[in-house]
Amino acid sequence: MVVTDASSLVSYITRFTEECFATLIAVIFIYEAIMKWFKIKDSLEVITYVPPGHPSGDGLCICNSDGASREEIHKIAHRRHLDHLLPFGNGTLDYSKIPLTHCKTLLGSLSGDSCYIMYDKWYMSFILMIGTFFIALVLKKSRNSCYFPSWVRQFASDFAVMLAIAIMTGIDILAGINTPKLNVPSTFRPTWSGRGWFIPPFNGNPMWSAFAAILPALLACVLIFMDQQITAVIVNRKENKLKKGCGYHLDLFVLSFLIVIVGYLGLPIYVAATVLSINHINALKVESESRAPGEVPQFMGVREQRVTGIITFIFIGLSVFMAKILGYIPMPVLYGVFLYMGIAALGGIQLFDRILLVLMPMKYQPDTIYIRHVPLKTINYFTGWQLSCFIALWVIKSIKKTSILFPVMLVAMVGVRKLMERFFNEKDLKYLDDKMPEFHLRKKEDLRRKSHAALKGAEEIEIDLDENQGTIHAVKTEAHLHIPMASGNVIKIPLSAIQEPSHNINISKEVNSSGMWRHITSESKTSLQKMGGPSSDRDVNSPRLATPEEGEDDDEAITINIVKSSPERPENESQPLLHKRG
Amino acid sequence: MVVTDASSLVSYITRFTEECFATLIAVIFIYEAIMKWFKIKDSLEVITYVPPGHPSGDGLCICNSDGASREEIHKIAHRRHLDHLLPFGNGTLDYSKIPLTHCKTLLGSLSGDSCYIMYDKWYMSFILMIGTFFIALVLKKSRNSCYFPSWVRQFASDFAVMLAIAIMTGIDILAGINTPKLNVPSTFRPTWSGRGWFIPPFNGNPMWSAFAAILPALLACVLIFMDQQITAVIVNRKENKLKKGCGYHLDLFVLSFLIVIVGYLGLPIYVAATVLSINHINALKVESESRAPGEVPQFMGVREQRVTGIITFIFIGLSVFMAKILGYIPMPVLYGVFLYMGIAALGGIQLFDRILLVLMPMKYQPDTIYIRHVPLKTINYFTGWQLSCFIALWVIKSIKKTSILFPVMLVAMVGVRKLMERFFNEKDLKYLDDKMPEFHLRKKEDLRRKSHAALKGAEEIEIDLDENQGTIHAVKTEAHLHIPMASGNVIKIPLSAIQEPSHNINISKEVNSSGMWRHITSESKTSLQKMGGPSSDRDVNSPRLATPEEGEDDDEAITINIVKSSPERPENESQPLLHKRG
Repeated sequence: MVVTDASSLVSYITRFTEECFATLIAVIFIYEAIMKWFKIKDSLEVITYVPPGHPSGDGLCICNSDGASREEIHKIAHRRHLDHLLPFGNGTLDYSKIPLTHCKTLLGSLSGDSCYIMYDKWYMSFILMIGTFFIALVLKKSRNSCYFPSWVRQFASDFAVMLAIAIMTGIDILAGINTPKLNVPSTFRPTWSGRGWFIPPFNGNPMWSAFAAILPALLACVLIFMDQQITAVIVNRKENKLKKGCGYHLDLFVLSFLIVIVGYLGLPIYVAATVLSINHINALKVESESRAPGEVPQFMGVREQRVTGIITFIFIGLSVFMAKILGYIPMPVLYGVFLYMGIAALGGIQLFDRILLVLMPMKYQPDTIYIRHVPLKTINYFTGWQLSCFIALWVIKSIKKTSILFPVMLVAMVGVRKLMERFFNEKDLKYLDDKMPEFHLRKKEDLRRKSHAALKGAEEIEIDLDENQGTIHAVKTEAHLHIPMASGNVIKIPLSAIQEPSHNINISKEVNSSGMWRHITSESKTSLQKMGGPSSDRDVNSPRLATPEEGEDDDEAITINIVKSSPERPENESQPLLHKRG
Repeated sequence: MVVTDASSLVSYITRFTEECFATLIAVIFIYEAIMKWFKIKDSLEVITYVPPGHPSGDGLCICNSDGASREEIHKIAHRRHLDHLLPFGNGTLDYSKIPLTHCKTLLGSLSGDSCYIMYDKWYMSFILMIGTFFIALVLKKSRNSCYFPSWVRQFASDFAVMLAIAIMTGIDILAGINTPKLNVPSTFRPTWSGRGWFIPPFNGNPMWSAFAAILPALLACVLIFMDQQITAVIVNRKENKLKKGCGYHLDLFVLSFLIVIVGYLGLPIYVAATVLSINHINALKVESESRAPGEVPQFMGVREQRVTGIITFIFIGLSVFMAKILGYIPMPVLYGVFLYMGIAALGGIQLFDRILLVLMPMKYQPDTIYIRHVPLKTINYFTGWQLSCFIALWVIKSIKKTSILFPVMLVAMVGVRKLMERFFNEKDLKYLDDKMPEFHLRKKEDLRRKSHAALKGAEEIEIDLDENQGTIHAVKTEAHLHIPMASGNVIKIPLSAIQEPSHNINISKEVNSSGMWRHITSESKTSLQKMGGPSSDRDVNSPRLATPEEGEDDDEAITINIVKSSPERPENESQPLLHKRG
């Protein structure tokens, strides 16, 4: 595939396919977390017990045979490590001697009206799962909270998941309930005692099986290619502004070697994990530090490096030596983390936004590029197609008999997308399924409109979606006012926040020539309040410059209130103010 | 007290005392909810059981005597309805025959390493409590959500607590766990079998006890007076704009009769419940229907009537016949409701806001009247005084020996407030402890400033806090643009939203004369989107008119975008638009 440049086929993977796949992965995370919690219910202990206040009845709880075959029972007992409960040799299985807890597992059934299932483990697991989820969610969002100095908030936000795990593991230890724990083997050896480190390629299979394996191998190949490349496409999206992107061929090349090694060792196949990769790149995003009131944080780019990746996996390797500590972590806490990751990943997916759009009355709809240009009916129709594809993927994946067709379905989705060109007009599809992020499109359009409006008046202007990204980037870089601070940081104020109506004024020149910028060094608080007073005369209800700033010491917290000075608008306050509060 | 006009003393109860008391009540709700959940732990069942995987040890769990006296044990057994477990007559108590579950209750102690406490009830209770709390919270806030049509959101918000109770009770029934249920007696009779309907006044007590009771009666009288009147003061606050307020004397008069009746019947003393009263008046508040972008909903007044009160208490009376249904409600669900009510009540209390202020970096502080005018140090100093008073109240209330002094402490707080006048300057106290709501003060000040600024320039102007409320109300009524709609509703647009810089322009005249208002009747969606396009040219980031509107049909949802037309600002778009979407 590397030699034949098959990676170039990824250009057919549009946002339509990407988002279907990403949603699938996120939903699998959520679904698995909940299902795994439900599965704990199957391993609950059963005792003979009548709670006080209940009629006692016969007071019995007995395990009976349901007529399952010997072989079946032995197979299950082996899988669940319950062999010691079965009689050796040919003796018939006496169900009444099996502990009540394992009765159902070994295909028996309970009778008697005093079987008591001990739900404590299950409920505690729920508390641990939901607790981890909520703590991670709240701590993650604490970055934008109004309380505590910024370093506390940043720490809490950066280590949200870690803190959630630590807190809930602590609660589990305090509660002392026998919740299922992370099962870390104490020695470094293959998990199953019946195998060595290497899996022999044939191991007794006939020669022809190698040829017969070509068909499933092809399907696996398609799956690995799609799984890897869709993740790569999502990570390499233009909106991430990667400078060192495009490792499609090299990644696939490395992967092909790894899969051979991993195959010999009998380990799971190695591909890029979608949710982890998205979370990783999100964590490395850099945003502009200071913001003018109402300004959306400026995305500057991604810290492109290999350090985090290498260190992460070194730590994963070193975790072998932390087996004892890891053994304290209850499984439900990890399910809570999965739940959090799945729901967090859903947040950035447009498909999910568009599904929610169906539930949203028109007047509250957000101002996105596709809502602006595409009729709502068409948007929902498009969402319907995409949702159907998602459901098809889910069903094919879930049913055991069809799950082998999953990679085929992934490829088929590209075809479905092509087919949709017959049902949708080209313009609508462009807005709904373009790999350019909608936010940039909107900005681009606004810039265009403004300049065109000056020439032609306020007609509607079609924008060229294929315009080079570079120019916009240049415009955005230009459109910032840089203010170096004593602390060494640079505050960037986007001009759009200052020069609302007309964007032709050179604000830097304006500000420099007027010399109105005042640095008010940290004085007494009274003078500060006095300054705060008149500056809010203009609009009392306008939000104060109150957005968390990255990496800035709280002692040097800076509040900026900028009003463009323009002689033709005398009713506006004409003094831009820079308050330094401390 | 009615005859001596003692109610006039309530004028000494300032916001300082009110809020201390309201906070105390809210915190009691929260504290009791959590404590009652903790108390469930004491009634958990204990069995002899070794969980699988644990070392079995001696496999025993035995109840032993801790040497408690016979009398003590009998007293407790009687109180907890466990008499049947004790031997009759003088036989010594054989602890080994007491069920393990009741061992600790009857002052025994458990020994042996296989005592297993069945935590399922406790954890399920936690899930029910927290679940009820969160569902109520989320549904209550759903009124301002962007999803679902307004009637759904309104229904969910109005019946938030009811829905939360219903959902969690359903979950409890499905789970089938033996959680503690609401204990509703099946027959209509005095709770304790040893008494009749009426409590005889002396019942064997000597005559002198009537005179000795005067002192505690005086304390109780002070408590009833303070409890009733503080609630009345909070409800009658100026910011509620009550037209039929001031029932202080009549209420106290009715109360005095009720308390005599209630005393004869041996029922709890009857006073206005603070949290319920605050919630009731909040539920009856009327706000203006439609809003311009960024406008704070206008508070119009309270629906003053007796219907809700009468119907509520008729229903409470009728609940006697619903004993069977009420018996399904688990107690932890009610604790969840208490938790919700306590936390909801904390929300509107300034003391709580000011405590949070300590944790808030300066740059994020809200624009309240006291932060504008009082130095932060003084605010925190004031909060410290108030918090100390609150803690004193809490401690006195909590310790059994001192709790009788609680009413005295409540009165003492008025003295403390008086004393504080020596430590704070008058102006600061006025801003921090005035019964006028800070929001109105701020508006009043802004209005003043604007008019004064025109005459004198932008100096800081002291405002008169005692100015008549009526005039502001008149100004506020004036400052709205009324647009009658086809649906019969009237949209009110506050002029402040339209005429930002100078407020002397008569916008209604302006709009009428320019004739720029366009009604775009429900046409095709394409034309709608075209209209939507250019209107957002002015500021892409400005929020669209997207605030939930009360009582308006969703089909007639209306989006308004108003820009004042003024010839001296040619760079602004000069066409106000009224889009009707449907």
